[in-house]
Amino acid sequence: MKNRILHLKPVAYSDLNAEILAHLNKYKSDNTEIEIRNLSCGPSHLEYLYYQAVAEVEILREIRQAERDGFAAAMIGCFDDPGLFTAREISQDLLVTAAAESSVFLAATLGDRFSVIVGRDKWIPQMRDLICRYGLRDKLASFRSIGLGVLELQQDKQETADRIRREIENAIVLDKAEVIILGCTMQYGFFEILQEEYQIPIIDAMLANLKYTEHLLEVKQKTGWTFSRRGMYERPPDQEMADWSLI
Amino acid sequence: MKNRILHLKPVAYSDLNAEILAHLNKYKSDNTEIEIRNLSCGPSHLEYLYYQAVAEVEILREIRQAERDGFAAAMIGCFDDPGLFTAREISQDLLVTAAAESSVFLAATLGDRFSVIVGRDKWIPQMRDLICRYGLRDKLASFRSIGLGVLELQQDKQETADRIRREIENAIVLDKAEVIILGCTMQYGFFEILQEEYQIPIIDAMLANLKYTEHLLEVKQKTGWTFSRRGMYERPPDQEMADWSLI
Amino acid sequence: MKNRILHLKPVAYSDLNAEILAHLNKYKSDNTEIEIRNLSCGPSHLEYLYYQAVAEVEILREIRQAERDGFAAAMIGCFDDPGLFTAREISQDLLVTAAAESSVFLAATLGDRFSVIVGRDKWIPQMRDLICRYGLRDKLASFRSIGLGVLELQQDKQETADRIRREIENAIVLDKAEVIILGCTMQYGFFEILQEEYQIPIIDAMLANLKYTEHLLEVKQKTGWTFSRRGMYERPPDQEMADWSLI
Amino acid sequence: MKNRILHLKPVAYSDLNAEILAHLNKYKSDNTEIEIRNLSCGPSHLEYLYYQAVAEVEILREIRQAERDGFAAAMIGCFDDPGLFTAREISQDLLVTAAAESSVFLAATLGDRFSVIVGRDKWIPQMRDLICRYGLRDKLASFRSIGLGVLELQQDKQETADRIRREIENAIVLDKAEVIILGCTMQYGFFEILQEEYQIPIIDAMLANLKYTEHLLEVKQKTGWTFSRRGMYERPPDQEMADWSLI
Amino acid sequence: MKNRILHLKPVAYSDLNAEILAHLNKYKSDNTEIEIRNLSCGPSHLEYLYYQAVAEVEILREIRQAERDGFAAAMIGCFDDPGLFTAREISQDLLVTAAAESSVFLAATLGDRFSVIVGRDKWIPQMRDLICRYGLRDKLASFRSIGLGVLELQQDKQETADRIRREIENAIVLDKAEVIILGCTMQYGFFEILQEEYQIPIIDAMLANLKYTEHLLEVKQKTGWTFSRRGMYERPPDQEMADWSLI
Amino acid sequence: MKNRILHLKPVAYSDLNAEILAHLNKYKSDNTEIEIRNLSCGPSHLEYLYYQAVAEVEILREIRQAERDGFAAAMIGCFDDPGLFTAREISQDLLVTAAAESSVFLAATLGDRFSVIVGRDKWIPQMRDLICRYGLRDKLASFRSIGLGVLELQQDKQETADRIRREIENAIVLDKAEVIILGCTMQYGFFEILQEEYQIPIIDAMLANLKYTEHLLEVKQKTGWTFSRRGMYERPPDQEMADWSLI
Repeated sequence: MKNRILHLKPVAYSDLNAEILAHLNKYKSDNTEIEIRNLSCGPSHLEYLYYQAVAEVEILREIRQAERDGFAAAMIGCFDDPGLFTAREISQDLLVTAAAESSVFLAATLGDRFSVIVGRDKWIPQMRDLICRYGLRDKLASFRSIGLGVLELQQDKQETADRIRREIENAIVLDKAEVIILGCTMQYGFFEILQEEYQIPIIDAMLANLKYTEHLLEVKQKTGWTFSRRGMYERPPDQEMADWSLI
Repeated sequence: MKNRILHLKPVAYSDLNAEILAHLNKYKSDNTEIEIRNLSCGPSHLEYLYYQAVAEVEILREIRQAERDGFAAAMIGCFDDPGLFTAREISQDLLVTAAAESSVFLAATLGDRFSVIVGRDKWIPQMRDLICRYGLRDKLASFRSIGLGVLELQQDKQETADRIRREIENAIVLDKAEVIILGCTMQYGFFEILQEEYQIPIIDAMLANLKYTEHLLEVKQKTGWTFSRRGMYERPPDQEMADWSLI
Repeated sequence: MKNRILHLKPVAYSDLNAEILAHLNKYKSDNTEIEIRNLSCGPSHLEYLYYQAVAEVEILREIRQAERDGFAAAMIGCFDDPGLFTAREISQDLLVTAAAESSVFLAATLGDRFSVIVGRDKWIPQMRDLICRYGLRDKLASFRSIGLGVLELQQDKQETADRIRREIENAIVLDKAEVIILGCTMQYGFFEILQEEYQIPIIDAMLANLKYTEHLLEVKQKTGWTFSRRGMYERPPDQEMADWSLI
Repeated sequence: MKNRILHLKPVAYSDLNAEILAHLNKYKSDNTEIEIRNLSCGPSHLEYLYYQAVAEVEILREIRQAERDGFAAAMIGCFDDPGLFTAREISQDLLVTAAAESSVFLAATLGDRFSVIVGRDKWIPQMRDLICRYGLRDKLASFRSIGLGVLELQQDKQETADRIRREIENAIVLDKAEVIILGCTMQYGFFEILQEEYQIPIIDAMLANLKYTEHLLEVKQKTGWTFSRRGMYERPPDQEMADWSLI
Repeated sequence: MKNRILHLKPVAYSDLNAEILAHLNKYKSDNTEIEIRNLSCGPSHLEYLYYQAVAEVEILREIRQAERDGFAAAMIGCFDDPGLFTAREISQDLLVTAAAESSVFLAATLGDRFSVIVGRDKWIPQMRDLICRYGLRDKLASFRSIGLGVLELQQDKQETADRIRREIENAIVLDKAEVIILGCTMQYGFFEILQEEYQIPIIDAMLANLKYTEHLLEVKQKTGWTFSRRGMYERPPDQEMADWSLI
Repeated sequence: MKNRILHLKPVAYSDLNAEILAHLNKYKSDNTEIEIRNLSCGPSHLEYLYYQAVAEVEILREIRQAERDGFAAAMIGCFDDPGLFTAREISQDLLVTAAAESSVFLAATLGDRFSVIVGRDKWIPQMRDLICRYGLRDKLASFRSIGLGVLELQQDKQETADRIRREIENAIVLDKAEVIILGCTMQYGFFEILQEEYQIPIIDAMLANLKYTEHLLEVKQKTGWTFSRRGMYERPPDQEMADWSLI
């Protein structure tokens, strides 16, 4: 039986769903079946903390729904990993992952240090904090910003690719990066040509998330290793959630 | 004219409001006028990430309301600082603070290293991350847990005080703490007697928050120094928030 | 076609090979085919740097042989990861992994902080350095030593398990570990019962290595992401190796 | 009754005293009364460790005098914070602060990371150490030097301002600073115009010190929280100081 | 021609001078000639920052005198390294060293991590800062305090030795220290018997200082490598010091 | 009686032995007698991990031979310090040192921060790890690469010197380095002229190694302080090594 995995696009529009699903399906393992959903309301991008806070409640609603719908795993498709820790806290059998955590752990193993290509400087403080929380501050060579917002990334693909190229080169030459992460799920679709050009791993965050999810599912199914319920991911008591109408 | 400051109790009950307001009023400066509000719906404590996520949206609603109501500042009354960065991002003239940030910066200056007395081990990972985000990891001597949930802290005050005493002593002797933070706003009311006993600063997080808020208001009014709008606290565009019904 | 993976036991005895192979086969994915080999000469354990240095040359010989024999991947079965970086440097299509790196990246994602149960204090400095090299120093709660050498770990299993239990409890209570790594491949076979007892992830390093290897193979095959050849893993020139009879 | 605060100019000249006092008075709170004093002998700037060592003894003499004269607080007006820890150690009721500590704690809260504009490269190692001692190394984006000595800073104000502008821009663009500290009290008087131009907080160290001092006084008077006497600030025994003629 | 080295006892009594000189002479190299001097006024121990500040001016006077007297080097005989950086800044040909720096660099090379046995908890914050300034925070296993002031250390030698023994054992067993530093020059005379007992290096800080001084002198004389005059140790201009009567 | 020190050139050619020996003899102390040896087989440079692994076994063979031949110390003449920790582990009376450790500890004391001039970017990750293991990450200003392989460094000396000059200037101006290390033993012979030009310490790694070795020998002979046998350098049991034909 295949593993049903939900790709949760944590924004409130569906235009690119088919394209994204096709992208994911191209790289999935045979054992995986992917479904894509987006939020029913909320912002269209998550460049601001406020948008993430609003989206997080919707994300958690979708996570709870995914659990009821019997998914094996859910992927939160944004490099800010909005709601990731919370989703793990409240989920039961559902395994939850997100784009940044998946990407940085992979990048950390593939070379000495990695750089992250972001859209705008605004994103950097939060992402740097995130990488510190994942414990990988010593593996981070640099952030490099291309000066484009999330919604511009797929508009003029040539322009986006050229800006990414310039910062990849800066990351390699100036920051001694050995691995590059495209630090926004909306930079999907660029990695193959860039990887061909630069001959170093160029991580597509959405795909890194997919492969990491498949890996953690396999690990869980074979060995029982999954998120510890002691400490950080201790789950709230069902009764209390029910009493407060939170479930 | 006095500074109107809102103490936002980020939980959905009002029982202790009068008692907390009296506690705050006892320590406020002459120039301050405090009002207390709580959430209209949501959880009664924030020990879980999920409860914080749900509360955050309500907190942000209250923050926006406080801005409209002409408050000079709003204090988020929880040591997890839920929604603090987000509230600063979306606020305009309203100055927003929270309990942990206020306490750790104060503790950092009063001695070499500080320990934080928490209710349960579950709280520690998040709070450690928070202290790292504030840049103060090197000033943290230890966390010490007393094994009580938030809602138990004010029930048997003798028991709570005795457990706090035991961990203060461990923090001083074993961890060489020179300053103690009572790491939950619901540990209010204990600091004076403990400070008398141990003769070192015992920080009441709610009061540290009050004094820090008054300080940042004074700074802002005299010098114009307030939260930078470049990077972390760049505000979302009004038009975008309006388009997405987020304002 | 299945992925042929070599489990390289980096010591010079074969007694436990069948048992270890059975252990690995029990947890492998359908797509994996495992073969086990040991060194033809050298030490029987790697508790000393000297033994590791001697073994490393043999390990590299086996890695080169594995490449010629068409394996897709090779796992170095020791928690000191002897020769790992070097093996990656000289390998071409062969993907090389080892026990510690695989375990710590997995543990890092499953909870806030992990502890490593080692045999003897002697091992700690090297392993701490290793975890720092992998970038995960902030995720390490503690090392806990049970006072047994590698060759004693499988002798009196009851005694070994009891000593591990004592240190798991110390790690949980005193060091706030949320995940435990059994920090020697020769602690294989203990994790399931301990995991049942403590209800937190207890990582068997040999199995973590297997699952991580399968993951990196899948990633490489689907996306082309594999070890960067820029910097740390730049490969020596073939001609130079030939000139110096190193190939 | 007003709080009498001493601004101690830790150098041996009085030329600018009236100007500095006027600057401070412009930003003080109503409850504050400021007096300014300088050293009676010693160097005219503190760019060298030697000058600081010589000045420190004079500073401590003035601190003891300030205590006898009934001041509530004393501010050491130099960004090297000369004698700060020592002054706190020997003072009794007098609350002692200094320019750097006050500035960095404020800057740390106002944005993700701050840069410090210094006069000469020579100052950087000591100031970096100081920021590490305050626990804020992770909040420091960079030091940027303008190539002017302390005594040149107020000579050609246009030139000084232009050099500061150039380094503020470098700090913002290259180092992603969100807050700027003018890292010498003798850079006073520049912040308002620069803040207007760059629209981010530009901290005047002398004023940050004033507001921080008022804050710590208010905190002490309302809650009793002041410097811990356990550990770092344990005071020498009076008898011993008397025996050795140190008091 | 022999190297004349001054051992500067940075306290104002001479009782133990002969004993200390004999101790040093026992371990010096053939090429070394040691003279001992103490301060003419000031405190008798340096456990407080205030005593160090007062002593520092006297130390610098002695350093300048030593330079005029043609010494090759001067050793500051206290584990707080009072005035070390300043003395290097103002000295010309005189090479200045101190006890802590000498000890920690030596200990860092002799094993994985070292512990420092101090007299009282009060000393720890300053010494921890010092070790951080020397760049060796990652090599520090722990501080362990024996509860005796400086002037008590040589009074009841049996008692002192027994207390040191207890903390050496704690450092070895609990903190995994591989090397011990006796963190006060007044713990001289104990290392040989303890080293015999514990079979690990027990560093006598006064002797470590002597051997390090001889080493740096030899290095300077053979290669010209000595303290960089760029940055931290840039020397104040002679004319300025003369103008301000500081020389 | 003089101390016999072996300079072990850890590569398999002897061409430069006489020149290197002359270089060392020029700077040695009177009490030292140097002999030079190279590996009988293996690579001619150690720029790759693989070459180091192959060489390490030969190095250890030479170390054991040096012990039998009665040397007091052996120096491993490569800035990657290949086999250093292992050689210390298995040696008995022989004291073993290497170029990088010797250089970085010396540089750390001579100024605030040091930069390392390397041949190629490839070297940096390993050397950065090494400096972290020595505990000195906070003292490292930067690596600067001149784009030449080891075997090219002595070919066109003018070209090599010019490239080093350019990076020394970058290190001083951009990275605020106060001390420079020439990070390859094959950069020998350049330091004096560069030191004359730049007036800051320019460390020749081979000579730093020599002086450090003489220092550690003197320390050991006078005080008995040498590498701790507890933990990292615990020696393998003789019987076990004999059983496994490793001795």
